[in-house]
Amino acid sequence: MDAYTESVERLIAALGKLPGIGRRTAERLAFYLLDADKEEVAALAEALGDIKTKVGRCSECGSMAEGERCAICASPRRDHTRLCVVEKPKDVIRLEATGGYNGLYHVLGGLVAPMEGAGPEQLDLERLVRRAAAGEVQEVILALAPTAEGDGTALVVAERLKGAKVRVTRLARGLPTGATLDYANTGMLADALRGRQEVGKEEP
Amino acid sequence: MDAYTESVERLIAALGKLPGIGRRTAERLAFYLLDADKEEVAALAEALGDIKTKVGRCSECGSMAEGERCAICASPRRDHTRLCVVEKPKDVIRLEATGGYNGLYHVLGGLVAPMEGAGPEQLDLERLVRRAAAGEVQEVILALAPTAEGDGTALVVAERLKGAKVRVTRLARGLPTGATLDYANTGMLADALRGRQEVGKEEP
Repeated sequence: MDAYTESVERLIAALGKLPGIGRRTAERLAFYLLDADKEEVAALAEALGDIKTKVGRCSECGSMAEGERCAICASPRRDHTRLCVVEKPKDVIRLEATGGYNGLYHVLGGLVAPMEGAGPEQLDLERLVRRAAAGEVQEVILALAPTAEGDGTALVVAERLKGAKVRVTRLARGLPTGATLDYANTGMLADALRGRQEVGKEEP
Repeated sequence: MDAYTESVERLIAALGKLPGIGRRTAERLAFYLLDADKEEVAALAEALGDIKTKVGRCSECGSMAEGERCAICASPRRDHTRLCVVEKPKDVIRLEATGGYNGLYHVLGGLVAPMEGAGPEQLDLERLVRRAAAGEVQEVILALAPTAEGDGTALVVAERLKGAKVRVTRLARGLPTGATLDYANTGMLADALRGRQEVGKEEP
């Protein structure tokens, strides 16, 4: 099409590669950006550059970090006796958003998925065992997905942690808050029965 | 929140300023970009920079251009005897997408909107009159929105073009293709009646 200039066409193509953004949305965004303040567009371009040059992995927990350690591992206000094991950096964000956890994290970088040829050797397990055995950590909380792969990975991690003197727990499984029994499937109900909690005695 | 690094937080904020993109979508896009190829992210950042440095207005029609003239004005294959008057560069894209027009364009840069204090002096009318009167142009097609403001602007433009020896037309008004009479409102039906076309004699 003659009507777009080359730069605009390249912008639309680049925006259209983003997940959930089709050609029409990319065109709409491009037109918005054409009219937007130079500063706003520059801020976006700069932030894009920065995430590729400045953001790396924390040398301790494997989560996102600018510099050697992430803000959580570096914080003296966090509880360094607890490690929460997650699959990916995004899970850290989700757990932080609850405001209910003040310990540290450990990002495995994946799950054991035999069907896809992903074995335990591809996970960041050695460093987890080292952190757990170093003396300070008292509890390792497995916050992995309640799926076959998540459960399989949890078994592998628990097995590896046997030598370290730590308590290994996992996230509670049961009815999702806000759900009704009508929509709970059998597995969900079975888990909720098995893990039933005494009223007034839930763990803090 | 501790969990995002500063660059990631800035990227999410910048993405969240785009129209139709809320905080959650911005986070999703940021995570995609964190994992994406360095080249893909660089291409997006570069295109963003380019639209602000390279893309300007065509010195003839006022549409988007890289360099002095846009690709349409510069093309010898376009019909230089017709000018299609539109409100904004985006309208050029929409009309080009139809594949049904081979003439040139003229972008007014707005509509006359007395309620918002936008008068004719804010539109690119002088240059339109000059182009229309230069000799080559035979027809000026008004492709403005079928609204009070679009119609008012069309009147102003037609008035200004009285001195130039050109035919002034406007886009046909009637039932939108694919619509049923059930959903056509009174104004639409009245326009369609008034502009009824003899079967087999529509203008090419």
